[in-house]
Amino acid sequence: MTHPKVQAMRVLVTGASGRVGRRLVTALQSDGHWIRGFDVIPPPFDPTLDDLALGALHDLEALAGAIEGMDAVIHLAAFMSWLPSDEGRLFETNVRGTHDLADLAARHGVKRLVFASSGEVYPELAPVRLPIDESHPTLPTSAYGTSKLLGEEIVRAYGRRSGLETCILRFAHTQSPEELLDPNSFFSGPRFYVNAKLRQLRKLPASPAVARSIEALEAVATSEERHYIGCSADGLPYRMGICDVRDMVHGLQLALTQPAAAGETFNIGPAESFDFGRAVPYLARATGLSTVTVPLHTTAYHYDTSVDKARTVIGYTPRHSIFDMIDAAIQWRDARPGEEAAT
Amino acid sequence: MTHPKVQAMRVLVTGASGRVGRRLVTALQSDGHWIRGFDVIPPPFDPTLDDLALGALHDLEALAGAIEGMDAVIHLAAFMSWLPSDEGRLFETNVRGTHDLADLAARHGVKRLVFASSGEVYPELAPVRLPIDESHPTLPTSAYGTSKLLGEEIVRAYGRRSGLETCILRFAHTQSPEELLDPNSFFSGPRFYVNAKLRQLRKLPASPAVARSIEALEAVATSEERHYIGCSADGLPYRMGICDVRDMVHGLQLALTQPAAAGETFNIGPAESFDFGRAVPYLARATGLSTVTVPLHTTAYHYDTSVDKARTVIGYTPRHSIFDMIDAAIQWRDARPGEEAAT
Repeated sequence: MTHPKVQAMRVLVTGASGRVGRRLVTALQSDGHWIRGFDVIPPPFDPTLDDLALGALHDLEALAGAIEGMDAVIHLAAFMSWLPSDEGRLFETNVRGTHDLADLAARHGVKRLVFASSGEVYPELAPVRLPIDESHPTLPTSAYGTSKLLGEEIVRAYGRRSGLETCILRFAHTQSPEELLDPNSFFSGPRFYVNAKLRQLRKLPASPAVARSIEALEAVATSEERHYIGCSADGLPYRMGICDVRDMVHGLQLALTQPAAAGETFNIGPAESFDFGRAVPYLARATGLSTVTVPLHTTAYHYDTSVDKARTVIGYTPRHSIFDMIDAAIQWRDARPGEEAAT
Repeated sequence: MTHPKVQAMRVLVTGASGRVGRRLVTALQSDGHWIRGFDVIPPPFDPTLDDLALGALHDLEALAGAIEGMDAVIHLAAFMSWLPSDEGRLFETNVRGTHDLADLAARHGVKRLVFASSGEVYPELAPVRLPIDESHPTLPTSAYGTSKLLGEEIVRAYGRRSGLETCILRFAHTQSPEELLDPNSFFSGPRFYVNAKLRQLRKLPASPAVARSIEALEAVATSEERHYIGCSADGLPYRMGICDVRDMVHGLQLALTQPAAAGETFNIGPAESFDFGRAVPYLARATGLSTVTVPLHTTAYHYDTSVDKARTVIGYTPRHSIFDMIDAAIQWRDARPGEEAAT
C-alpha cells in the first residue's frame, strides 16, 4: 500500500535480516517502496523482500551489484562486539565496509544514504554534560563506538564531495520487546539477568573492575536465573534509554524520506531515560523471577540522551517506554504459549 | 650529542626516508635519541639511521617488528594523492595503516604516538571563520583530508582506551626550501609554475572549473616555464601559509618530548600566511622567470591558520617565512652550481 505523501523508491537495506532490518523492510514496503535486502544470511522470518542480495560487506563485487539501480541505501549492517580479539573485525566490517559502501553509493548515483551510527560515539559512561545532544563531544571509549564514529566521518565526507544526500542516526541502546523476557537474548540477557551478565563478564579480559563485578554477581547468583538492578559502586541505579525497535524503524523511515534530514545527524532513541530501579521490578512481575541490586564496577550507566533535534527537524515521535515494551513482550508471549518453554 | 633537558628515547619514525622524515631523523639524533626508521625504501641521502626497518604499512608483521622495543613512534608515513583513482589506496595506507600502527603501539606499550595530520581536515577552500584554529570544524573536502581526519580519530581513540599518550599535529602545506626553485618538485611545481600546474590539472577528472583553469593557464603558457600568481575568479590572489620543513621538524620534536603535548591536537605551520602576489615576484628574482597572474577556478586558497595553541602550550616558535625559504633555496643552489642544470 503506497503512502500517499511519500514517493516510492528502490531502497537497499544492508543488514536486512537483523532484528531491526527485517522490521524496517516490512515498514518500508508498507510505505510503497521496493526493497532489496543485503545480508550474509536470508531473513530468518517475517519479511518477503522484493529482492535479496546475499554477501558480506567486504565482498566488493556483491556490494556493487546490490547498489546498482538503487535510489537510496539504509546501512544497518555492522559487526557488534566488545571483545578485544574482535577489534580487527570491527574495523574491517564497520569502517572499511562503510567506506566501500559510501564510495559505491556516490559512484552509482544513489540519492540518499542513511547510516546507522550509535550513541557509543559519545562517552556514555562519562558524559561531559546531560542530556547528551548531537553537539556533545564524540569521544568513544570502545572499539565499537570508534568504528561507528569513523563510519560517520566517512559518510559525511562522501556527502560533501558528491551529490549523495546523507543522514546519520545515532541509535540509543535498542531492544525488540520480545527479547526482554529472554535471558539468552544477546541484548537483554546481560542487561537484566544475573547469570547472563556473569557469562558476559567472564569473556572480558581480566581487570580489577571486572573481577569485582563478577564477585558481586556471584554472591547473588542462583541456579534459577534472577534479575539484577545494576548500580554504581555508590548505589546509584542504572539510568539510560532503551529504544523500542518500532521507534527506531520510525526514525529510519523519516531519515529516508524527509528533505530536512539531508546532511544531518540525529540521536534516535526513546522519549526519555528510565531508572532500572523502577523498570526491573516491573519486568520481574512478568518473568516471576526474583530481583537483586548489584553494584557493578565495570559500568555505571547513568545518562539521558536528547532526541529533541530529531523531533524538531524531521518530526520524530518516539512512542514506546520501557513499560510499553514489557507490556508488548507479555502480549507476545501470551499469544505464543507453545514457544514459551523454548526461551 | 644528548640534549641535556630531554630524556633519550628509542623512537620509530615512519616515513623516515621522506623529505620531512630524513630531516627529522637527523634532528632527533642530535637530541640524543636512538632512531629506527620505517619506510618502503631506504633514505636517499643524509641520515644515518640507528636502525632501518623496511616495509609497507599494510605489512603487519613488518610493522609489529618495527614497533617492538620502541618508547615512541612518530607516524609520518602516508600516501598523498588527489586523483579519484587513488582513493582506495588513500584509505588502505592512511586509514587502515594508522589503525594497525596505533593498535600495535598500544599493545606494545609504546609511551607516545605522534601523528602527522593535515590542515586538509579543515575546509581550507571554504573556511567557516578565520584564522583557522584547532576548534574550527573539521569538514575535509578531499579524500586525502578525510583519510587524515579518520587517522586522527583512530589515534585519539587508542589514546583514550590505553596508556598510549598521543599528539596530533595538523601540518600546513609544507616545503623544503630547495624545492622552491624546482618546477618538477611534486609540491612546488604546481604551486608556482605554469606548465607544472597545467600538467597537474590535466590529470584531474574533467569538470567545467578544471576546463576553465586549463584554458586560463594555456593562454599564458610558453615553452619557457613561467611563474603564476594564482587568484580567484574575482582577482583575489592566493593567501595561505607554507611551512618550512625545518619548522615542521621543530614542531615534531616538541610533540615528542613536551609533557603538555599529551592528548592534544595542534596546528603546525608558519607564523603567518603570505600573499602570492608578493612572494612569487620575490621567487621570480631568483629563478629569472617571468610572472603572470591567472584566475584559477578550481581552487581559491585564501586563508590564515593560527598556531597560537602550539606556541602557548608546547613553545612552538616557527622561524621561517616564505622569503627566508626562498633565500635558503638560493643559498642552496649557489652552493651546488654543478647540480643546477639537472633541476
